[in-house]
Amino acid sequence: MNETHDMNLESWVESANVPEADFPIQNLPFGIFRRKGETKGRIGVAIGDQVLDVYCCISEKYIDGLSDELVQACQSSTLNDLMMLESTRWSLLRKKVSGLLRRDNTIDRKIIAKKSLVSMSEAVMDMPAAIGDYTDFYASIFHATNVGGMFRPENPLLPNYKYVPIGYHGRSSSIVTSGTSIRRPMGQTVSSDSAPPIFGPTKLLDYELEVGFFVGGGNALGATIAIEKAEDHIFGLCLVNDWSARDIQKWEYQPLGPFLAKNFATTISPWVLSLEALEPFRGPAFKRASTDPSPLPYLVSEKDRQTGGIEIVLEVYLRSKKMRTQNMEGVRLSRGNFRDMYWTISQMLTHHASNGCNLRPGDLLASGTVSGKEKDSRGCLLELTRRGAEPLQLPSGESRKFLADGDEVIIRGFCEKKGFRRIGFGECRGVVSGSLQ
Amino acid sequence: MNETHDMNLESWVESANVPEADFPIQNLPFGIFRRKGETKGRIGVAIGDQVLDVYCCISEKYIDGLSDELVQACQSSTLNDLMMLESTRWSLLRKKVSGLLRRDNTIDRKIIAKKSLVSMSEAVMDMPAAIGDYTDFYASIFHATNVGGMFRPENPLLPNYKYVPIGYHGRSSSIVTSGTSIRRPMGQTVSSDSAPPIFGPTKLLDYELEVGFFVGGGNALGATIAIEKAEDHIFGLCLVNDWSARDIQKWEYQPLGPFLAKNFATTISPWVLSLEALEPFRGPAFKRASTDPSPLPYLVSEKDRQTGGIEIVLEVYLRSKKMRTQNMEGVRLSRGNFRDMYWTISQMLTHHASNGCNLRPGDLLASGTVSGKEKDSRGCLLELTRRGAEPLQLPSGESRKFLADGDEVIIRGFCEKKGFRRIGFGECRGVVSGSLQ
Repeated sequence: MNETHDMNLESWVESANVPEADFPIQNLPFGIFRRKGETKGRIGVAIGDQVLDVYCCISEKYIDGLSDELVQACQSSTLNDLMMLESTRWSLLRKKVSGLLRRDNTIDRKIIAKKSLVSMSEAVMDMPAAIGDYTDFYASIFHATNVGGMFRPENPLLPNYKYVPIGYHGRSSSIVTSGTSIRRPMGQTVSSDSAPPIFGPTKLLDYELEVGFFVGGGNALGATIAIEKAEDHIFGLCLVNDWSARDIQKWEYQPLGPFLAKNFATTISPWVLSLEALEPFRGPAFKRASTDPSPLPYLVSEKDRQTGGIEIVLEVYLRSKKMRTQNMEGVRLSRGNFRDMYWTISQMLTHHASNGCNLRPGDLLASGTVSGKEKDSRGCLLELTRRGAEPLQLPSGESRKFLADGDEVIIRGFCEKKGFRRIGFGECRGVVSGSLQ
Repeated sequence: MNETHDMNLESWVESANVPEADFPIQNLPFGIFRRKGETKGRIGVAIGDQVLDVYCCISEKYIDGLSDELVQACQSSTLNDLMMLESTRWSLLRKKVSGLLRRDNTIDRKIIAKKSLVSMSEAVMDMPAAIGDYTDFYASIFHATNVGGMFRPENPLLPNYKYVPIGYHGRSSSIVTSGTSIRRPMGQTVSSDSAPPIFGPTKLLDYELEVGFFVGGGNALGATIAIEKAEDHIFGLCLVNDWSARDIQKWEYQPLGPFLAKNFATTISPWVLSLEALEPFRGPAFKRASTDPSPLPYLVSEKDRQTGGIEIVLEVYLRSKKMRTQNMEGVRLSRGNFRDMYWTISQMLTHHASNGCNLRPGDLLASGTVSGKEKDSRGCLLELTRRGAEPLQLPSGESRKFLADGDEVIIRGFCEKKGFRRIGFGECRGVVSGSLQ
């Protein structure tokens, strides 16, 4: 374990030392922020309730000893240039930031704070990267079985599932940051198998709780990525809400997969957590049933089997308009864990590049809905309400089969383990606004 | 009709006046080229066997009267900035280029030629645009029926087909320009329904003949594009080869659609033909059978019904390594026509944005395989050889079920009509090189 995981390490930024803080000095995720009124984003690191302006720290010489290449990457208004560098560079930068922020640092904190810290409440978060391609996987066998059973009762889990980390290309243009309001999409839906479709607002709007990971250090077209090297190509993780219109999806998805049911919006959380920060929370990959086949050799490494899993607690909260009006907190709809995924992030990445498909720094891969075995760990309403058959009761007296206009969906993720500091992902939020027309 | 269609119009660039020329003065497609040794692309217009350097014409004042915005867009090394402007701007620029190149222009041709014309044989063509998102449709009912019958014999054409312009997101990172060699991808395939998959080079490598169109002038997230306005958002058309690995596709495509079977490479032709150049070749949209349902109202306009079709002859040639060694010409495998598509380009674009999905200038939409009713108009080997059951005989004595290493696939497209000059798309080429590993 790296010294940056030491649970006794504290920061002179006091808000980072609160036990429930998402962003203690053990975390230090990267993101892109703007001070109010600024038009160009800057690279920031989250610490407590503050954002550290990375390039400011470099230009003011609070941080030194970085290569020219790294310094230049830190001047960008996206993380892509940083992602492009080798993983050792990201690690070095994070270590330097850790050194600057630790309590026992003897430099003049007041000046550093004044020049390079911005309160999160004063910062606007931008997209962390210019996302070239976005790929969405389907890596939870519980989700695949639950949903498959609804779309294809006779055939819930297809024969390829235990061999292929199933994925498909999503839409990169409509990925938005947390807080962006989501228009209820229009689309074609059918009310019964024999009726012709109608065009109108989706009636079955859903969220999907997912974890995303950004490609850092890509591969050339025609080259592959060995599973042993996959994590060197992963810059970090964030939360994803893959908003879905179930009625549109059901009608359109055959034979080429989901399209307009998904591409109207995908929300991501603004902070990207490094694998280094997540290291204490690694564990074995999903334990396959003894009757399950082994993955093909290109998807297997001993290290991935032992530490390919990541223990991330993932929660979804719903807060309706009525609940907000009445100053009620959001109600938790589910709590799952990322360790329950059938495929690891290395397996997804390696599979993606196994045919020579080039991944570029800044590309986003998402896990697919994270669902567990238990009912309260199901990561979307389709599963939670069994396609509306079992509506949820909200504390406001309302009930929900699917999302209503005005509903806010809040996804949270965090890692906890005895002997280590808790770290968090922050939030991935979005309010459903009215329909387009 | 616009004066630029006048078939008697000739250019002082004599190679443009040859009857079989793809690029007469009536065409004037845009592309990005580099002179040999240059690292940065420039905007060019194809004329005969020459490329006109557009910004050079502006800086040398051969072309004037353009807005600052347009001049700036012409300095870019992609077409995106030009695509971003209103369609009237593209039209103006094309008209100015036409005026410069017409035979009756009295300016000093020698100087213009010397400064701003580059022989195509001396030019390297780059990607015309930085493609943000790539979407592939499935707009030929003949292709959908033929292929559907092979993947799902009991259910070739799904109930949604006549209502929904079916499409899915493809991979933008692996789109390459004509001439790039294509590695045979590795992937999972099964030899029978009960056997476990193996990982190895695809045995069923195929091409798909398609037509692509670039978005010009996008729409904001949450906004839609009315079908009456769709063509204002289309910068122009090119040829597309959507290389496909049929054995990988068959195993992986359910339930989320094709992924690694397609995303290893897509080849596009370098020249983008404007709708203005294609205007004389417009015709009625596909004539639906009387038993077919009408499209839903958002996909219908009177103008699109009358002129939504485009008469483009599309040909596929194959030239094996042996044929090249023996100096044989490529053999034509098929000849189809783009007018045979069930959905128009406006319908595809309007459908894509109908849920509020934002399309950006430079995004590429492709039609899906262009196949007609007749056997010799089928746009891929899967259809032509009935999945290998009816191998093709090549004039070299070889036969083909699917593509062999060393095979070159050449797609050509052109428009011909009495009373108008023939215009062409040039070529979309690629040689299959050996497998990855």
